[in-house]
Amino acid sequence: MVNVADIEAAAARLLDISVHTPLLQNAELDRLAGGKVLIKPECLQVTGSFKIRGAYNRLSQLTSEQASNGVVAWSSGNHAQGVAAAGAMLGIQTTIVMPEDAPRAKLENTKRLGGEVVTYDRYTGDREALARQIASERNAELVPSYEHEHIIAGQGTVGLELADDAIKMELPPDQVLIPCGGGGLSSGSALALKSRLSGAAVYAVEPADFDDTARSFAKGERVRIDDSARSICDALQTPMPGELTFEINKALLSGVLTVSDEEVGAAIRFAFKNLKLVIEPGGAVALAAILAGKLETKGVTTAIVLSGGNIDVGLFAEIQAEPR
Amino acid sequence: MVNVADIEAAAARLLDISVHTPLLQNAELDRLAGGKVLIKPECLQVTGSFKIRGAYNRLSQLTSEQASNGVVAWSSGNHAQGVAAAGAMLGIQTTIVMPEDAPRAKLENTKRLGGEVVTYDRYTGDREALARQIASERNAELVPSYEHEHIIAGQGTVGLELADDAIKMELPPDQVLIPCGGGGLSSGSALALKSRLSGAAVYAVEPADFDDTARSFAKGERVRIDDSARSICDALQTPMPGELTFEINKALLSGVLTVSDEEVGAAIRFAFKNLKLVIEPGGAVALAAILAGKLETKGVTTAIVLSGGNIDVGLFAEIQAEPR
Repeated sequence: MVNVADIEAAAARLLDISVHTPLLQNAELDRLAGGKVLIKPECLQVTGSFKIRGAYNRLSQLTSEQASNGVVAWSSGNHAQGVAAAGAMLGIQTTIVMPEDAPRAKLENTKRLGGEVVTYDRYTGDREALARQIASERNAELVPSYEHEHIIAGQGTVGLELADDAIKMELPPDQVLIPCGGGGLSSGSALALKSRLSGAAVYAVEPADFDDTARSFAKGERVRIDDSARSICDALQTPMPGELTFEINKALLSGVLTVSDEEVGAAIRFAFKNLKLVIEPGGAVALAAILAGKLETKGVTTAIVLSGGNIDVGLFAEIQAEPR
Repeated sequence: MVNVADIEAAAARLLDISVHTPLLQNAELDRLAGGKVLIKPECLQVTGSFKIRGAYNRLSQLTSEQASNGVVAWSSGNHAQGVAAAGAMLGIQTTIVMPEDAPRAKLENTKRLGGEVVTYDRYTGDREALARQIASERNAELVPSYEHEHIIAGQGTVGLELADDAIKMELPPDQVLIPCGGGGLSSGSALALKSRLSGAAVYAVEPADFDDTARSFAKGERVRIDDSARSICDALQTPMPGELTFEINKALLSGVLTVSDEEVGAAIRFAFKNLKLVIEPGGAVALAAILAGKLETKGVTTAIVLSGGNIDVGLFAEIQAEPR
């Protein structure tokens, strides 16, 4: 079971590669929320998303024999870049199975970082089976995108930094909103946050159609959503929570919020206009939840994680051009 | 004469309104530069540019009688927002003379912040005369955008934070590049930087057509450029350096670099794609200088200031769509 000591150990490992992101504030967001909002911009992170944290934490703990055989991962794009970057930093060969319709920037960056990319069809292919087959052929280690203790501990450093910096700023959050796909970021961060700020309520935020964690949370057990689900949030299209991640989330989260594609678009526009940050759809869900009033923010301090910024310029321009 | 004690006093005043921006790094930028690059993102600042620093430092030192009469400023947009925001924070009425073709976002934000906006024609009107007339009618204090010791000291807090944070990070810059219009930011920051890091070379960066500081620097005295000058950098269209600012810049700068509109566009695209930051043309000149190889960055540590992010979505989309 992951605990806060694992997250602190991950944070110590990550000191080598400077992943600490700042905690920002914005007057217009505070005004709209009617309270203080703290912004953790993981779009400013190495590779443009928080994923380097878990990937580096996992890869840096491989034995030298494991490292010499390389690693295999599957990912919609951000974990792919994180794994490729961590591999490049540590001298480990990386192969990543990615959907062929992943954002071009994510595909290109993964290759540029030295990852070998194998593509599959998001709606008909089985990425996990493909990755397992490649790994078995090469005797390579698998690096799952959330269902592993080292990954959860690595992503949890987002929550750890957030808590420690907010305490230093004398603005301990009353509530924290975290984007949720498979649940690695939310579970790890919830563990860290609850250990530092036991009174803070932690919420996961999902796209409306990919609300597997919300449904699982309501039912008390893991639920798989059906294959017809679609979302603008390419980074959060996970059909079912992980076993490890859901166990932690079930125990620690105060709830799960969901936002529509339109609410996500409005958040991306707000970030451009007011925050001067580029965020991708999956990275915008927590901001979208605040702007759409999915929970009370008046008179309290709310922290949000903007988990990534890897969006293609075409989609970004389309979203900016939408009527508001 | 402004000195570092004035800048430290300004920094102390500014503690009340949380203007400290982080110092960021980016792996892709380091790779292209062949050295370390430190990024000071003033686009993340209150009102989206560094201008709040000087405006607040000036307005907070008015006597109560001066404050009760309100203030008048002229500005292409960022100083306008800074003055309006500082006025709102301090309960001082503000009137700002702005070009009628200023970016819409800048005009709208200035009004939203409570500033009274008076427009003029950028190419035929005399904004300074208009502002002086209004100020004299109302017995109101003028708040120039660069030619005042309190303004220079306030903007200098950018350089002070940059130096102090870089020293804490154990990455003292060998050279620092600062966008330059009238010279308030560059002169104030040069003063602060030279007092903290006497060995650092400080460069101002200007748009190619608005190279008044470069020409003045070459001639050793203030030169006015002619009225036909045009630039995408709406924030840096100053025809002549200030007296106070040029005196400091002449003494402290190692040189003045210039960049073309195309180089600025490439920098805005780079910031979108790799930094996940929205920067406006005038805010992009120092980054443009690095990317265009205007000075040697190999094997050294270079710091750049991204001075603002207030760009209209239409222009931003146009720049993103340009062939690269």
